[in-house]
Amino acid sequence: MSKRRPLVKGLEAIVGKERVVHHPEDLLVYEYDGSIDRAMPQAVVLPDSTGEVSRVLALAYREGVAVVGRGSGTGLSGGAVASEGGLQVALTRMNRILEVDVENRLAVVEPGVINLRLDQRARRSGLRYAPDPSSQKACTLGGNVAENAGGPHCLAYGVTSNHVLGMEVVLEDGAVTWLGGMERDSHGYDLRGLFVGSEGTFGLATKIVTRLLPTPPAAKTYLAAFSDMRSACDAVSAVIAGGMVPAALEMVDALTIRAVQKVAHAGLPEEAGAALLVELEGEAEELEETGLEVEAILTGAGAFNLRWAESEEERERLWSARKGALGALGALAPNYYLVDGVVPRTRLTEALERVSEIGHRYDLPIANVFHAGDGNLHPCVLFDERKPGAVERVMEAGGDILKVCVELGGALSGEHGIGLEKKAYMPLVFTGEDMEMMKTVRGAFAPLGRLNPGKGFPGGPAGHHNLQRGAVMAAGPGAYV
Amino acid sequence: MSKRRPLVKGLEAIVGKERVVHHPEDLLVYEYDGSIDRAMPQAVVLPDSTGEVSRVLALAYREGVAVVGRGSGTGLSGGAVASEGGLQVALTRMNRILEVDVENRLAVVEPGVINLRLDQRARRSGLRYAPDPSSQKACTLGGNVAENAGGPHCLAYGVTSNHVLGMEVVLEDGAVTWLGGMERDSHGYDLRGLFVGSEGTFGLATKIVTRLLPTPPAAKTYLAAFSDMRSACDAVSAVIAGGMVPAALEMVDALTIRAVQKVAHAGLPEEAGAALLVELEGEAEELEETGLEVEAILTGAGAFNLRWAESEEERERLWSARKGALGALGALAPNYYLVDGVVPRTRLTEALERVSEIGHRYDLPIANVFHAGDGNLHPCVLFDERKPGAVERVMEAGGDILKVCVELGGALSGEHGIGLEKKAYMPLVFTGEDMEMMKTVRGAFAPLGRLNPGKGFPGGPAGHHNLQRGAVMAAGPGAYV
Repeated sequence: MSKRRPLVKGLEAIVGKERVVHHPEDLLVYEYDGSIDRAMPQAVVLPDSTGEVSRVLALAYREGVAVVGRGSGTGLSGGAVASEGGLQVALTRMNRILEVDVENRLAVVEPGVINLRLDQRARRSGLRYAPDPSSQKACTLGGNVAENAGGPHCLAYGVTSNHVLGMEVVLEDGAVTWLGGMERDSHGYDLRGLFVGSEGTFGLATKIVTRLLPTPPAAKTYLAAFSDMRSACDAVSAVIAGGMVPAALEMVDALTIRAVQKVAHAGLPEEAGAALLVELEGEAEELEETGLEVEAILTGAGAFNLRWAESEEERERLWSARKGALGALGALAPNYYLVDGVVPRTRLTEALERVSEIGHRYDLPIANVFHAGDGNLHPCVLFDERKPGAVERVMEAGGDILKVCVELGGALSGEHGIGLEKKAYMPLVFTGEDMEMMKTVRGAFAPLGRLNPGKGFPGGPAGHHNLQRGAVMAAGPGAYV
Repeated sequence: MSKRRPLVKGLEAIVGKERVVHHPEDLLVYEYDGSIDRAMPQAVVLPDSTGEVSRVLALAYREGVAVVGRGSGTGLSGGAVASEGGLQVALTRMNRILEVDVENRLAVVEPGVINLRLDQRARRSGLRYAPDPSSQKACTLGGNVAENAGGPHCLAYGVTSNHVLGMEVVLEDGAVTWLGGMERDSHGYDLRGLFVGSEGTFGLATKIVTRLLPTPPAAKTYLAAFSDMRSACDAVSAVIAGGMVPAALEMVDALTIRAVQKVAHAGLPEEAGAALLVELEGEAEELEETGLEVEAILTGAGAFNLRWAESEEERERLWSARKGALGALGALAPNYYLVDGVVPRTRLTEALERVSEIGHRYDLPIANVFHAGDGNLHPCVLFDERKPGAVERVMEAGGDILKVCVELGGALSGEHGIGLEKKAYMPLVFTGEDMEMMKTVRGAFAPLGRLNPGKGFPGGPAGHHNLQRGAVMAAGPGAYV
């Protein structure tokens, strides 16, 4: 307590007493995010402006205190967990949409703005904010920037990095600068793109300029059942090979379908081995034509129970099988651990077979709910944490899944980041020299490495190790993919 | 000569005598690129493989020699000019398309592959490489990566950075590493994105993995004349406001039209104050519908002489007004200096008026040929270099144009890079701290700063100053935008 006195006093002088949290019982809520790990920060501060963030970071810099940024805490890789203690800067009060410039199709927002709120505001002007992480009702744009968030519609429209034009950021020592701007530009190195996805280790974004896209005039959504994953994967390949770029191409497996059927009524047959959701966007007439092609491809690949939606209500119903999937998994097991990995789309079937083998080997059921169109797997390892050794087995199985992704030519993460969760696996894809280069790059922004320390690289207090283990990983606030 | 002996001997030992150029008369051809500046390298080497590039860079590193990469030399900002002497590494022999993976929609190419060749190869499989700099018949993908090249169709599809998934690169000391990979991934900092547009100061890309997109089933191209720039700019705003994202939205002004009419027969009326080219891509039926909307918007904004093309031949003819524009300017003046700047699209009219004022002030005609859809201006300052003081006045006028772009909230460069040409203007948009941060980032890749030294930041032998001035800036190999 004595150690944090000067920090707390200094914070209170900047933002006032009521926006500094430091009693251990009040800090409990800031201990975790959507990941498996927990750790208690020394204090939490809730600044209201760039000036306050700057003064807070300058104070932490002088006091030698680590700083961890935090939005809604929905992240799945431990990015917002204060694994080395220190100060947590919660940006949730900075939640203003500062500008929606319809003519130039951009918005300027504060980092605490909820993703869906920006999208809804844009839609009032016939525009939208395209990246739609499944947590979009809860997650903040600041968090999206930190993790370079994806989402079902990123297949057609690209991830967060493709939609952020510029940012005002506060650096480790409190200095305020701009990266990028209001335009597509090519002057200077692309520090904007570098900052996006840097998981809070470079600075805290205090203003974000995002692109807004025109909303498509029409959409058509298909839900199809298949007897097995292989035929569903073949359908994915055939759709892509047909030259179509659906707005979304999502898959759930048999286990997930059974779970969904227990809690909702998405209308999927119990005997289905997989279900595929295909969403097309465009002009109504174009959709008619492309829709016929998609129907033919799906049917040709063995789809049954093919249904489609043209109204928003029907569309929501079809999406419920996908969006309700993670919540439904709670009906199968008390906990799940969600793995985020990528494989080349052409190796999806092989990857899923190997994930299934891993499940058998560890005797753990694995449900699959994922962004099939871009090969972004989300195997959910089901377990009961009360069984001795269960968590350790789950973590090992998760590691094996990531190894398969890398072996097949894929990536450690599609959209959730490395954080604490995967830092031990970085050597699967990067050499020591690669990581040293990354740390040198980080040093240009945060020379002391005190912003979100211990994340992204092996070493230090690790995910799944020295930290207090999270009690619940089932459906909850973090249950989005 | 004595100074370069050990370097030349060493190079010959790596690649053989016939692929090392060091006689001054042979070096003349490597003295310039598409920009205004010239400088002679000590030697030029033409490696054939990553291994050779690596050994060449290791040798230069040991010998303390600066290294400048070079593709086809079409760059317009001096990126390939050896402004501080040293070794030029010409990558034109490394021109193999190593793989076209139709199913995963990607290609793996060497840096010397010509942009158009990759596109043509992709089209044989129903795909395309989207970024299409106007130099695409000549420029290399390695150069495109270095400058983060744009092009008319980047309005809808994004610039080079959006289409490069990964690269094998050789660093300053000869070390070989991979940045990014074959997938969209989010593990580790985005060094791939950072490398694209780093203008040869981070390393030399020796393999490039690019995305390929499906070719659109149909295209429809409109060419419309307007009485003045303001109404053409209003038409641009109206098309965008209508929620359309044309594949291209290009404009030429009255002076350009007059020049084009002298050398070609693009069918533009002499009395036109501006011409607008609008290209739509998509399903044939969709194009019919969107096309009617575009026609209505253009006509409503005062278009006359509205024509359209649905066949490839007609399309080429309409594009000739735009593509032949720079060559045609040779009919108006012996030289031109092409400025690349960006303004918010909503301030296009204002920007063009101020460019016109600058022309009057300096008594220099300025023709405008540009990517209107994304506010990327290309004012061409016409002059005769034989008139005393002309070049200096042109450079000053160019600087004033860039200042206007920045004042209006735009950028120093849209697609040509900073290089030598604009390094003196970097302080218009960046503070000293910003630039120090960029140099620290560069240091992670090239600690000694010997790759393309003297580019991108103020200081050192400058563009428009200590270098021998290029003799010709009129239509020639570099005459593309």
